[in-house]
Amino acid sequence: MHMNKTVALDEARNALVIIDQTLLPGREELLYLTGIEDIREAIYELRVRGAPAIGVAAAIGLYLKAVDIARAFSVSDKTPPEQPPDKYNTDHFYFELHAAKNRLLTARPTAVNLGWALDRMERAAMEQNGGPVSAIVARMRTECLAILEEDERVCVAIGRNGLELLRPGMGVLTHCNAGRLATASRYGTATAPIYMGHEQGYNFKVYCDETRPLLQGARLTAYELTASGVDATLLCDNMAPSLMSSGLVDAVLFGCDRVAANGDTANKIGTSYVAIAAKHYGIPFYVCAPSSTIDFNCADGKSIVIEHRLPGEVTNKWFERRAAPEGVKVYNPSFDVTDADLVAAFITEFGVIRPPYQENLKRILKDGRWKLEDRT
Amino acid sequence: MHMNKTVALDEARNALVIIDQTLLPGREELLYLTGIEDIREAIYELRVRGAPAIGVAAAIGLYLKAVDIARAFSVSDKTPPEQPPDKYNTDHFYFELHAAKNRLLTARPTAVNLGWALDRMERAAMEQNGGPVSAIVARMRTECLAILEEDERVCVAIGRNGLELLRPGMGVLTHCNAGRLATASRYGTATAPIYMGHEQGYNFKVYCDETRPLLQGARLTAYELTASGVDATLLCDNMAPSLMSSGLVDAVLFGCDRVAANGDTANKIGTSYVAIAAKHYGIPFYVCAPSSTIDFNCADGKSIVIEHRLPGEVTNKWFERRAAPEGVKVYNPSFDVTDADLVAAFITEFGVIRPPYQENLKRILKDGRWKLEDRT
Repeated sequence: MHMNKTVALDEARNALVIIDQTLLPGREELLYLTGIEDIREAIYELRVRGAPAIGVAAAIGLYLKAVDIARAFSVSDKTPPEQPPDKYNTDHFYFELHAAKNRLLTARPTAVNLGWALDRMERAAMEQNGGPVSAIVARMRTECLAILEEDERVCVAIGRNGLELLRPGMGVLTHCNAGRLATASRYGTATAPIYMGHEQGYNFKVYCDETRPLLQGARLTAYELTASGVDATLLCDNMAPSLMSSGLVDAVLFGCDRVAANGDTANKIGTSYVAIAAKHYGIPFYVCAPSSTIDFNCADGKSIVIEHRLPGEVTNKWFERRAAPEGVKVYNPSFDVTDADLVAAFITEFGVIRPPYQENLKRILKDGRWKLEDRT
Repeated sequence: MHMNKTVALDEARNALVIIDQTLLPGREELLYLTGIEDIREAIYELRVRGAPAIGVAAAIGLYLKAVDIARAFSVSDKTPPEQPPDKYNTDHFYFELHAAKNRLLTARPTAVNLGWALDRMERAAMEQNGGPVSAIVARMRTECLAILEEDERVCVAIGRNGLELLRPGMGVLTHCNAGRLATASRYGTATAPIYMGHEQGYNFKVYCDETRPLLQGARLTAYELTASGVDATLLCDNMAPSLMSSGLVDAVLFGCDRVAANGDTANKIGTSYVAIAAKHYGIPFYVCAPSSTIDFNCADGKSIVIEHRLPGEVTNKWFERRAAPEGVKVYNPSFDVTDADLVAAFITEFGVIRPPYQENLKRILKDGRWKLEDRT
């Protein structure tokens, strides 16, 4: 089955193009978004989701905003776009850009990539401070395309590194969607070793937690894996220990939304549950983490902000008729934090990181392509 | 809010009366069932569910079958009902009864109460072997009403015994429905300490796992608790560790479908998950177990038959549109087995049973009202 790219820049239309993931698996429909509010809505409503994909979408969104501001300059201002604007106009440009960045930032609080990508974009814009508007815009275009391309290379490297931990025929459990639909890559993060192994005839048996309340495992992961010919089996979230105790799971591969400096990991609600059960059954729990998800400004899991979402996601959404009595209270956190000591290893684009994480996360990143200093 | 009895005998209509639980929480509708096939269908389709309620429903069903056979005798046979039938007719009566029993038995394999109640009913019928048909039927009527009444007394005793383990203001987590809708009692099993505490102003905060795929926690437990004015909060199954790590859960109260002689416990899928997480967080995991759910013929969890149900329950049922891609494989066991060493205590009608379970389950039952010899 052909699948469109999860997130892309359409330069002819000056639009962010995404697959509307709320319509999957029934329909694969593309959305062309141009305005910051539409892009923010798409992130908030999970039309585009997954930490890396959110980062890429926001970066493209901020670039499109820069194009917009530049266009307004050339129409309403005296300064032609190829000339440096005067101080007032420069300030105004950056002010509008910063406001747009802050607006996008509020769409989702937990995934670090949103802020990380927007910071990169704003820094790139600031580099051209004093230059012509066209140069600022061009620099931002380069940066958002770089973020997009890096995502592909990072996922390929995670796939290669992760595959070394797996053997043909293994049963692999995953949760939520850290697949190609969660990234701008053909491989995804947690699914990268799976897809790469599939290409090499590893014949994995992949088990997908359906992932309530938003069913990303059922709607997205099971969808993209079966579309690629991977042997995928769906289960409800509460069935994982039954599967594990039956000996069907050899490894657990998860994505992540934010990793603290000590290795505590925020990821989709239910992740820590799987990690606790995997430890109970002696099954290795691996977190596939692009280095962009590691937040050295965050000492440990306690400082990670957890997004809570509306009750209707649990009681109404997807259902033919309401599944719970009217007026019942609902607990609906979108993420949880897995303690670092439940993680067997982090699979990053720079290699596999083993405990102690407090030291090793930093050490491996220092040796990596991005210097740590660039990240904090 | 008024609630009907979950399961009852309507003697005017000679019918089993149940609340059709597949329609909750939207509609509370009574079903009047008379034939074995209809009763079997109601059990298979979970219109009536919960180990104790299934036992009571099956007992009433077998009594209604006896009434039917007796009626056929009086119409088509030479023997009037108040006379002992001849050998041929007696054999025929018991043969038909036994066939009906076996038919009901196949409705669900995991809950012990189904077989336990049907065995009791058949034994009661056999006691009257040689007597008139009317005596057999009368004895079976007495027996099914006894099973029904015992259910109420057992639940009250479980409530009283369980309440001693709890303190006012506690947060209590439960899963699936082991409430009044799972029994013939006003108290239920796992909910008995909760309802009894509620009557005494304990102000528990009760957290209900929604319990995929059939949503018994959302549709039934949240429904009956809020209908009774208990402070209830709904969560998705995968959110329990988030709740536990936030310090909101002081105790976990579950029901059970079959307890092996060593304390291994089969209960709704996901139960062992909660037990593993509760141990991880140091929270006591209590199983509310009528002694009728303890199966001394079953050495340990490995010998418990686990029912697997159809894929559509996970991919289609309840949903407005299909939640998973066509053709995906589905793993859908209806129960799992919790290792005995994860259970802090069994709360039975005879008292609280602590480890070692291999010895203590037997000892306490021997001291109880039912002699162990009656049970094996």
